[in-house]
Amino acid sequence: MAEESQVNQMESLNIGETSGNPEAVEDVVDPWNVQTSSATGIDYAKLIVRFGSTAIDETLVQRIEQVTGKPAHPFLKRGIFFSHREMNKILNLYEQKKPFYLYTGRGPSSGAMHVGHLVPFMFTKWLQDTFDVPLVIQLTDDEKYLWKDLKVEEVLKLAVENVKDIIALGFDVEKTFIFCDFDFIGQCPEFYRTMVKIQKHVTFNQVKGIFGFDESSSIGKIAFPAVQATPSFSGAFPFIFNGKKNIQCLIPCAIDQDPYFRMTRDVAPRLNMVKPALLHSVFFPALQGATSKMSASDPNSSIFLTDTPNQIKNKINKYAFSGGQATVEEHKEKGGNCDVDVSFQYLRFFLDDDERLEQIRKDYTSGELLTGFLKKELIGVLQKLIGEIQERRKTVTDEVAREFMRPRKLKFDY
Amino acid sequence: MAEESQVNQMESLNIGETSGNPEAVEDVVDPWNVQTSSATGIDYAKLIVRFGSTAIDETLVQRIEQVTGKPAHPFLKRGIFFSHREMNKILNLYEQKKPFYLYTGRGPSSGAMHVGHLVPFMFTKWLQDTFDVPLVIQLTDDEKYLWKDLKVEEVLKLAVENVKDIIALGFDVEKTFIFCDFDFIGQCPEFYRTMVKIQKHVTFNQVKGIFGFDESSSIGKIAFPAVQATPSFSGAFPFIFNGKKNIQCLIPCAIDQDPYFRMTRDVAPRLNMVKPALLHSVFFPALQGATSKMSASDPNSSIFLTDTPNQIKNKINKYAFSGGQATVEEHKEKGGNCDVDVSFQYLRFFLDDDERLEQIRKDYTSGELLTGFLKKELIGVLQKLIGEIQERRKTVTDEVAREFMRPRKLKFDY
Repeated sequence: MAEESQVNQMESLNIGETSGNPEAVEDVVDPWNVQTSSATGIDYAKLIVRFGSTAIDETLVQRIEQVTGKPAHPFLKRGIFFSHREMNKILNLYEQKKPFYLYTGRGPSSGAMHVGHLVPFMFTKWLQDTFDVPLVIQLTDDEKYLWKDLKVEEVLKLAVENVKDIIALGFDVEKTFIFCDFDFIGQCPEFYRTMVKIQKHVTFNQVKGIFGFDESSSIGKIAFPAVQATPSFSGAFPFIFNGKKNIQCLIPCAIDQDPYFRMTRDVAPRLNMVKPALLHSVFFPALQGATSKMSASDPNSSIFLTDTPNQIKNKINKYAFSGGQATVEEHKEKGGNCDVDVSFQYLRFFLDDDERLEQIRKDYTSGELLTGFLKKELIGVLQKLIGEIQERRKTVTDEVAREFMRPRKLKFDY
Repeated sequence: MAEESQVNQMESLNIGETSGNPEAVEDVVDPWNVQTSSATGIDYAKLIVRFGSTAIDETLVQRIEQVTGKPAHPFLKRGIFFSHREMNKILNLYEQKKPFYLYTGRGPSSGAMHVGHLVPFMFTKWLQDTFDVPLVIQLTDDEKYLWKDLKVEEVLKLAVENVKDIIALGFDVEKTFIFCDFDFIGQCPEFYRTMVKIQKHVTFNQVKGIFGFDESSSIGKIAFPAVQATPSFSGAFPFIFNGKKNIQCLIPCAIDQDPYFRMTRDVAPRLNMVKPALLHSVFFPALQGATSKMSASDPNSSIFLTDTPNQIKNKINKYAFSGGQATVEEHKEKGGNCDVDVSFQYLRFFLDDDERLEQIRKDYTSGELLTGFLKKELIGVLQKLIGEIQERRKTVTDEVAREFMRPRKLKFDY
């Protein structure tokens, strides 16, 4: 999975996406570039049309609650997971007590994960808890090696640190298999076979169109989309699925990863395999706002899992882009803009209490609350969230990580 | 490795090779196409110039004899292995008692191997016996899957049968590791890592130029050259080389495989790895002659390891292209042509006795011997050779094959 799921203004490599109509520059969204010129971020409604996915609407959210008998996750109710492919099929299977499994992943990046990286994992954990299904998590250390100026040994180290961060989010070892490509592909012949099956049925023309590769791209990059596609098929994990090749997969991920899975869904019928279903999330804004780039190399661009309570407080106070007015008087008169205020946007992700969030929205919009209040609220929420993760992270020993990464049967029978 | 190492008149896919000068159509030699319009076969002297390799001359053959203290293999003395890259470096290492290892391979083809397939393996066995070094043999079942209309399960079966055929040639289990990609790549993380390292440093433009891929080629084909390159680097086999990454490799192979290893040698310095040395063999002619295609699907195009003594006799008598004249009288007067007589050509490969071969050459050229004599001689030689292989093949149980294919330390210490 690509490292950065954020909105930025990098110059796009993906000329095709922007050259259609110079009057209305489209947002660019692919696994390596996400950019918009709008302060409110990407136009997700347009993206759904362009990608050919389906909006997650009230009806679907209600059906999820009805089928599971549990309240929907705030990410669903608040449009953070906003788009899907075949989620109704997943709910049908669940109703019929037929199996499916979850697959998500991440490209291990330098050092610590930031809070934006938590979004797909927190949601995936909720899905796992709610539906009680197996989960596979892929760390694409091979992708990082292919795209970045890093040595194999360096990405291997990053991957293990990232595995520990992910485990610290609270995944259940009896239901979760985490793997790094550089280790696991050399431990499982069926994974490599599935990879090559996919590679046989995808041409250079296809990946060129989907991912913007050209003739100077390395053959590693060109072949890589098959590596990320492979965990979508249960046959790649015979130890979990008892050799069954047609267990349905559901992939929660940020929308920029969709190109991989459009390709996967396209190739699946030609391999007599089941198309994975998908749930897509929006991007997470940088502290400096939706048009700014969030980067692991700029510690002030986001809040990281390694930040101390003081760092969290100082960064938010200093850098969180404000939707407020220039003066207190003007703010009280005109009110704040929740759509661009980063503190409010972060609270949408991490403040669980629906009523409190709604109250804050109203009071900030009316001008009753100042940005300072939102910042204080967010500081408290993130200090608590990150503090808890840091506590759990201390218990994630090498031994614990090894157990999550050991190819093994999970608690499910097939 | 490509399945067919023979001369044929298939229409070339490799337009670039032949379109230079319409007056003088060049031979086509790449891993999937070997063709010539000349009855005496490929012009190997020209090929050496075009590929930039070095001819194996009398001086090198003498040095091999001097360094090893043993007579050179007939394949060396007769120009069957005719070209090399850095063989002198190998001899230097041997003199300095420094390590090197052998790597050869094969694309598992349908059913039995034919006698032409024996050539690189017989020579490799001689190299192993003479230099006492480890040998790795790669069966590219993944390549066959990618190029042919076959299922993974089908190529897996073919590969195991081919492994048994290869073992029956008499390789020493203490010095030999045989592997099928579809099994082994899923058993050895270091192999996959080395593969991806190569893939990072080779572009589509490069493989397009070397192998003639185009934009409609599958991404599996485009990435495959790295799979065949990988065993050239000792780091891919940590269990044999104790993790040492810079043990020199020597690759005996038919000249059509050279494009893979030109690419490998090109990429090696960028990975801080040692370029493999090479020994190249000529192609093996079909029974019907050098311009005809030898094919596993035409049982009469060659002699197969599964042929009975009677089949060997009948095929050679019926199909072996003759270099003789139209009538006995004319033959006695003008003499036969050893350069096109397939029985003589096969004897060059398989009749060990130098003096006897030379006598036959003289007597056939002078017209004293008729083609029938050569056929009878060849029948005897091949019945004995294949009979012995068939006897040994009976002792190659599944257990024996499994032991050759088990990733393990060989009898060498590093």
